[in-house]
Amino acid sequence: MRIALLGGTGDIGEGLALRLARETTHEVVVGSRTAEKAAAAVEAYADRLGDELTADLSDAPNEAAAAGADVVVACVPPYHLSDTVDSVADALSADAILVSPAVGISRDDDGFHYNRPPQGSVAELAADAAPDDVPVVGAFQNLAAGALADLAHELGFDVVVTGDDEAAKETVKGIVEELEGLRPLDGGALANSAEVEAMTPLLINLAMENDGLHDLGVSFH
Amino acid sequence: MRIALLGGTGDIGEGLALRLARETTHEVVVGSRTAEKAAAAVEAYADRLGDELTADLSDAPNEAAAAGADVVVACVPPYHLSDTVDSVADALSADAILVSPAVGISRDDDGFHYNRPPQGSVAELAADAAPDDVPVVGAFQNLAAGALADLAHELGFDVVVTGDDEAAKETVKGIVEELEGLRPLDGGALANSAEVEAMTPLLINLAMENDGLHDLGVSFH
Repeated sequence: MRIALLGGTGDIGEGLALRLARETTHEVVVGSRTAEKAAAAVEAYADRLGDELTADLSDAPNEAAAAGADVVVACVPPYHLSDTVDSVADALSADAILVSPAVGISRDDDGFHYNRPPQGSVAELAADAAPDDVPVVGAFQNLAAGALADLAHELGFDVVVTGDDEAAKETVKGIVEELEGLRPLDGGALANSAEVEAMTPLLINLAMENDGLHDLGVSFH
Repeated sequence: MRIALLGGTGDIGEGLALRLARETTHEVVVGSRTAEKAAAAVEAYADRLGDELTADLSDAPNEAAAAGADVVVACVPPYHLSDTVDSVADALSADAILVSPAVGISRDDDGFHYNRPPQGSVAELAADAAPDDVPVVGAFQNLAAGALADLAHELGFDVVVTGDDEAAKETVKGIVEELEGLRPLDGGALANSAEVEAMTPLLINLAMENDGLHDLGVSFH
C-alpha cells in the first residue's frame, strides 16, 4: 500500500512516518510543501531508524506524494487543511482515502479548548475540501506527537476511527492495527468526529494539571 | 461528610448512591422531587447492599437533602439542572460544593453528539444557576450509569475533575479516590468542562459501534 503523509515533516507526521517506517512494509511517502524539506526529513528519519527501517520510505513534494497513494494522511494544521487538500486534489487516484488526524485547539488562561470548525469537525472540513468521490476518515487525532515520535515510548492507546465509507474505514483500521500498541476502535460516522477531536485538548489539559502525566493517550474499556 | 445526591433515584444517581454507600462512611442522602420516590429508592439500595452498606444512607426531598450538605451532586438531566439548583439554593450551606455530573447529548442517524449548552458546558450552566458563593465542580460525567450501578462491575476508570475553586476540587477528588476503581484527575478550570462532557457521547458511540464494548469508561496514561 502507498501511504502519503502530507506535511509529513511536522509533529504528528514525524511520529506517523517513524512508526509506519519501523512497523510496516508499506510504501511510505513523506510529503512537504518543498522537496528539500521532505528530503531532509526522510534522511533524518532513516538515520534514526537505521536497521529498524522496514518500509519503503521516500520523500516528495505533497502533490507528488499524493499521486497514486492509496491512503493520504493530511498531517497539517486545520488552517492549512483546505489549501493542502486543494493542492493535491488533482493528483489523487480514483480510490484514494483521505485521513484527517488534525485538531483545532485554542488556548486561554483556563487551558486548552476544542476549536470546532463551522463544518462540525476538522474531519468534516477535510471532507468539504476533498473531491466528492474521495472518502474521508478521521483517525490519529488523540495521539501525542511526542509519544509517537519517541520510538522507545510504548503506546498502548486506542485510536478512534470515524467515517461514512465502511471500506475506507476498514483500510485505516488495518493500518492502525499494524502499529505496535495501537488499537483501532470504530467511532461510527464522520459526523461523530468532533467528540474525538475534542479529546485532544482534554489530554493536554490533563498533562498540564497532573504531575507525572505527559504525552497522554487514552484507552477505552 | 454529608453528600446529597439530587435526583439520586435516576441512572447516575443510583450508581453513585450505591458506590458511596458501599465504599465510604459518609452521610449519603438520596434526594428526589418527592419524598416517596427518595424513600423507595433508598429502601431498594439498602436491600441490594445488605451487609455491604457502610455509609449512613438516608432519603429526603431534594431541598431537605441539600440542607447542610458539604457536597451536593446534581444527578439530573441538563434541562432540569437550573430548576433543580434553584429549588435547593436557599437550603445550601455557606460552604457547600455543587458537583455537576450531567452531560447534554443529542442523537441523530449518525450517532450520539455532545449538545453544548450556551454557557459552554453543563458544569458552567450549573455555575450560572448556583448562588455566586457556591463553587461548582465538574466530575463523574464519563461514568457509564450501567457500570456504576452494577456493583459486580470493576470500574478501573479515570474521573476528570474540573473547577475554579481548588479546595472544592480537592474535596471532590478525595471522594472519587474513596470509590474503588476510580482515579481522580485534575482537568483544570471549570471552563475546561466541555471537553470532558463531550467524551460521554463518544463513549456511547464506541459502545454502539464495537462488538464486546459496553458500559465503557476511559483511562488516561
